[in-house]
Amino acid sequence: MEKIRIGIAGYGNLGRGVECAIMNNPDMELIGVFTRRNPADVKILTSNANVYSMAEADKMTDKIDVMIVCGGSATDLPVQVPELAKNFNTIDSFDTHAKIPEYFAAVDKSASSNGHVSIISVGWDPGMFSLNRLYANCILPNGKDYTFWGKGVSQGHSDAIRRIEGVKNGKQYTIPVESAVEKVRNGENPELSTRQKHIRECFVVAEEGADLARIEREIKEMPNYFADYDTTVHFITEEELIKNHSGLPHGGFVIRSGKTGASMENNQIIEYSLKLDSNPEFTGSVLVAYARAAHRLAKSGVCGAKTVFDIAPAMLSLKSGEELRHEML
Amino acid sequence: MEKIRIGIAGYGNLGRGVECAIMNNPDMELIGVFTRRNPADVKILTSNANVYSMAEADKMTDKIDVMIVCGGSATDLPVQVPELAKNFNTIDSFDTHAKIPEYFAAVDKSASSNGHVSIISVGWDPGMFSLNRLYANCILPNGKDYTFWGKGVSQGHSDAIRRIEGVKNGKQYTIPVESAVEKVRNGENPELSTRQKHIRECFVVAEEGADLARIEREIKEMPNYFADYDTTVHFITEEELIKNHSGLPHGGFVIRSGKTGASMENNQIIEYSLKLDSNPEFTGSVLVAYARAAHRLAKSGVCGAKTVFDIAPAMLSLKSGEELRHEML
Repeated sequence: MEKIRIGIAGYGNLGRGVECAIMNNPDMELIGVFTRRNPADVKILTSNANVYSMAEADKMTDKIDVMIVCGGSATDLPVQVPELAKNFNTIDSFDTHAKIPEYFAAVDKSASSNGHVSIISVGWDPGMFSLNRLYANCILPNGKDYTFWGKGVSQGHSDAIRRIEGVKNGKQYTIPVESAVEKVRNGENPELSTRQKHIRECFVVAEEGADLARIEREIKEMPNYFADYDTTVHFITEEELIKNHSGLPHGGFVIRSGKTGASMENNQIIEYSLKLDSNPEFTGSVLVAYARAAHRLAKSGVCGAKTVFDIAPAMLSLKSGEELRHEML
Repeated sequence: MEKIRIGIAGYGNLGRGVECAIMNNPDMELIGVFTRRNPADVKILTSNANVYSMAEADKMTDKIDVMIVCGGSATDLPVQVPELAKNFNTIDSFDTHAKIPEYFAAVDKSASSNGHVSIISVGWDPGMFSLNRLYANCILPNGKDYTFWGKGVSQGHSDAIRRIEGVKNGKQYTIPVESAVEKVRNGENPELSTRQKHIRECFVVAEEGADLARIEREIKEMPNYFADYDTTVHFITEEELIKNHSGLPHGGFVIRSGKTGASMENNQIIEYSLKLDSNPEFTGSVLVAYARAAHRLAKSGVCGAKTVFDIAPAMLSLKSGEELRHEML
């Protein structure tokens, strides 16, 4: 079996998650990790792959079938992906929902004019959650969508806590309000405010002598991040933080509650849920599955930017159409 | 907007479910219902559609874009769909899992050689459950699949009860074993026997003077249907049956429990669940969404048999790619 040759651009939590996912897929091999750091300083898990400087990528175009780009959405991906799509098929997890249309256009321009396939915004939200919103909306046009996130660590909110004066370290969990989820599951179609959907729980390590009351107040009153939520703040030691809050669990639910019938008398509830011990490893696993599809599409002559909406599910699988119909239909 | 013109072949519970679903989709119109009964005896809900005899279908080829075939899997669909696919794009819900490969081949031959698209085995299982098995397997290659059905009415098991001597009427509910579902959700990856996954609950109306003990024994010992399950039998009156058990609710869960990480140290759980007040109306809603895809594929020159695995999700939606990226990604 000729393996699909993968490159990873950017080696943080997500890059490592992708690397682990490649190990789970026998038709894939990691060729190299591309980094903006000094390659000698980056240790990877895969013994027969190399670490290169990002600038070397354009010399590797004939050695890599798909480049999985693991940078951040704020500043990395909008620059990196249009650039890399000139030379590679790419996969990314761009997740700034509001900016997806302009990002898609920029990536599409580069990928199309260079004959490559770029699948953008792959992961779980956007990604698997989006797919489930789409399927559920098509099946139940007369209905209402609900997305809940958590329980899980929000990196953005954890970062926001750590920027407060007197905070040494911190982690923030986003937690769905159980009673709201139950109402939705029961087909009650509630109108839910931001506060009614999620609560936020913060574990904070303060610097010695810091004013804890002020830190707590600054967190709870922080606009956009915390002010619209019921937020609890726990002060703990650095040891407790490391021992109990080092993981990156996440998850959530996408629920569509719809009506069918001649008089719309029947409730129909579709729910998709994820419970993830490791958010970056799961996201990496989704990226790798879509890398297989990108490689196939490119081989069949397709090019341009795509999203998960454009990819037939069978394209993700190592199995033939015949095997899939026999084993999974 | 030019509407997609739909025909329904077969007007039982599922045919009526499809008819209701068409009302929820502004880009579709029901042209006619085709029946093996006397058309004059069939009353439908849609005032501007007609009822035709099945034999008239081949005179309607230029009036119908997609024929949704709502017959039974045992004897109707294997005959009807290859025949109808000569003249129409078709959608069906063929659900005899073991016979899907041969059914696919027969339908593919007819559809391909006549330039039509036939999407087979559409619904929720096979259908949405199959899709979720496929996506979850591609994302988590190292894992285990679980499918639970219910709580819901099994038509096959209800029929089996009604065939017993002395039984006037009966309904059977398939119910997942809650503790088994919980173990799976907790990532315990249990090995579960048939008995450990589902229980069967029967509501039986006996004929006057019938031997209730014998009926109960015959149900509980019936091979394939009940012998491998913990089964409870309740004798009730016809009035109670009509009042409390007239609906056709169903649903279930598809769960994949997988491992990721350098040492496979992290659990990742993907769950898809349905809670349906009306099984035939939900199935009908899925069929109608795939009718849209079949029509589009046919217009773009595609032909042959397809399954849900082959259909890019965006093909199901009335919205443009741009709208989908903006609103749902």
